[in-house]
Amino acid sequence: MTNTDQELNELVEPKSVRFDEVLELESSGRLDGYTLVYETYGTLNHDRSNALLVCHALSGDHHVAGRYDNSGKTNGWWHHLIGPGKPIDTNQFFIVCSNNIGGCSGSTGPSSVNPATGEPYGTEFPIVTVKDWVYTQTKLSDYLGIAQWAAVIGGSLGGMQAMQWSISYPDRLRHCLLIACAPKLNAQNIGFNDVARQAIRTDPDFHDGNYYQHQSAPARGMRVARMIGHITYLSEDMMGQKFGRNLRKKAKFDYEFTPEFEVESYLRYQGDAFINKFDANTYLLMTKALDYFDPAADTGDDLVKAFEPMKADFLVVSFSSDWRFTPERSREIVRALQSNKLNVSYAEVTSPQGHDSFLLKIDDYTRVIRSYLNRIAREPRPCSDLLDKGEQNV
Amino acid sequence: MTNTDQELNELVEPKSVRFDEVLELESSGRLDGYTLVYETYGTLNHDRSNALLVCHALSGDHHVAGRYDNSGKTNGWWHHLIGPGKPIDTNQFFIVCSNNIGGCSGSTGPSSVNPATGEPYGTEFPIVTVKDWVYTQTKLSDYLGIAQWAAVIGGSLGGMQAMQWSISYPDRLRHCLLIACAPKLNAQNIGFNDVARQAIRTDPDFHDGNYYQHQSAPARGMRVARMIGHITYLSEDMMGQKFGRNLRKKAKFDYEFTPEFEVESYLRYQGDAFINKFDANTYLLMTKALDYFDPAADTGDDLVKAFEPMKADFLVVSFSSDWRFTPERSREIVRALQSNKLNVSYAEVTSPQGHDSFLLKIDDYTRVIRSYLNRIAREPRPCSDLLDKGEQNV
Repeated sequence: MTNTDQELNELVEPKSVRFDEVLELESSGRLDGYTLVYETYGTLNHDRSNALLVCHALSGDHHVAGRYDNSGKTNGWWHHLIGPGKPIDTNQFFIVCSNNIGGCSGSTGPSSVNPATGEPYGTEFPIVTVKDWVYTQTKLSDYLGIAQWAAVIGGSLGGMQAMQWSISYPDRLRHCLLIACAPKLNAQNIGFNDVARQAIRTDPDFHDGNYYQHQSAPARGMRVARMIGHITYLSEDMMGQKFGRNLRKKAKFDYEFTPEFEVESYLRYQGDAFINKFDANTYLLMTKALDYFDPAADTGDDLVKAFEPMKADFLVVSFSSDWRFTPERSREIVRALQSNKLNVSYAEVTSPQGHDSFLLKIDDYTRVIRSYLNRIAREPRPCSDLLDKGEQNV
Repeated sequence: MTNTDQELNELVEPKSVRFDEVLELESSGRLDGYTLVYETYGTLNHDRSNALLVCHALSGDHHVAGRYDNSGKTNGWWHHLIGPGKPIDTNQFFIVCSNNIGGCSGSTGPSSVNPATGEPYGTEFPIVTVKDWVYTQTKLSDYLGIAQWAAVIGGSLGGMQAMQWSISYPDRLRHCLLIACAPKLNAQNIGFNDVARQAIRTDPDFHDGNYYQHQSAPARGMRVARMIGHITYLSEDMMGQKFGRNLRKKAKFDYEFTPEFEVESYLRYQGDAFINKFDANTYLLMTKALDYFDPAADTGDDLVKAFEPMKADFLVVSFSSDWRFTPERSREIVRALQSNKLNVSYAEVTSPQGHDSFLLKIDDYTRVIRSYLNRIAREPRPCSDLLDKGEQNV
């Protein structure tokens, strides 16, 4: 296959599916039907055993791989990881990624029209949780005829969804890849989330969540929220290496409130860029889902017990400089998996880029993913209709 | 002395002094005269050799010790450290603390009336730096007849002022106490400061800094700024111990945007409490002064060279869980002091409370301060008019 063929192969279009069932949510809220937007890459094999589900994180979406055109600007957020011959090889696997409900990229969310009112949901959109997302992803799996995923994969909030899959639907995945995640947020994580939420919710343009009707958006709040987020995604060392105390296009201070340091420009730029890319209500919902996630809450704070239903094999990956979800929190997951006698591989990747590492092209990280995916590709595959792990279609 | 006498002794009132000189600032701005509000505790001895200057931090003020009444609510911010028989003993020392210019507690600042316009300065108030503060403190020293301080003491931004004293006016202090500080902010510190500033400056009630005339204040921005600040003042472990994932007065989630977790309530409370206590323009100025502080910037990023003028003896104190200004950054100071053959004592206090530790009553910390101050009290004292350290009036 030539490079051009490969590139052509990577052109994708989002698809969507409507589910007209009533969706009862963990929050006691409900949706009278919902749409999921998703993309697929590669080809589902005859026995439907080569399907991988990727779950996205806070500000991610369904466009995880491929490209919408050849400009390079519309590459999926894991473009370097997923594609023909790439670590998650579309020549081997059929990969699916959907936009979570509550999202703002096409799946039913706060900016969608509420059929009951004919207006955008706004704050009428109910709180959604990781469990809800995973449930809706099972509906998409059924629709695609995928009884069991070869693997469910996610980083950060996406990893929490993968974790929940292996607890709630242990027979529906053979492998689970948990990257840069944690078994629950700690007080500091929740604190940062709440500051971001308060920045958005107290912006006068928030209009109690119904800003769509006011042709406005809480841009100031979103900007501040994203700036805070970015600091927590980067490591202190990386910020030091990348920006240090470098001045912005000048040799000495202006002693003004315009940006003096490069790091100020960078964060403001990231904040500004986010305003038009993401819906504030979705940002609020995603941070709440992060806060609520805590599988051990159902088992008296016992993570080992919470993991008892699991059957999958696991790859857990953490990054040395991630202070949002430190390697220690991945090790906590690993220990609880091991206590359940599950097969676990664990890699702590040395990288200076902090939590953001899970989105980046880092050689050691890429190698770990490639190697684990190769292992999945080589292993005997079960019949799709024989979900008992014991019966395999070698 | 009875307890009651001691308590009576601790009643204080702020004093103020007006300097009518033109103050040329590092930023090239100028003030046509300025007022400093200050407090003193204890008695200046005959040879004026027992005076200690305390420099305050970002949201501090001149009320470092004593009390305004016996309610207990108006105790100084280092009430547990400074007083009769306390680690910084007012029976031994004459202690001075002034509100920095740019402040909002009585010294000339953005909310003061600009004599040129008859209106509050607002954004007309120039950027002030640590060097400017230290210069104005020398004017107060002259006014009080203190040619040389027995010690200049500060924590956090206060420590930076103490450091600057020992560089700019090495003959005017015998000891310098640098507590929970750093030789300069790093990119992450600056990033957090800028997020806080952006929250304030983009609040519509900021009115470009002239909110006084609008009978308003950027309360939303200040609230968010203070919430961010608080997360960085506490340690992750302390937040875990203090709040963890504890719910706020309930057994299960409400799935709403009202606070679910105690940590959310705490941070929002801290944010709200700050709104009416502190002026937003002062907050902006204080964070800028933090950003700009970098004594090694004048010596080609060579801290050892920056410290060459120093003559004082030093006590450097850091706190194990301080991630804003880590112990490593105090050790960087210590190494540069040692390279200049200065006398340095260094204590890394084990405490879980993060950066906030420097404001708290922590036994090991208190002991270190008491012991060092006892040493100062015992040492031979120089004549106040013989500033050369070699000539001492034993």
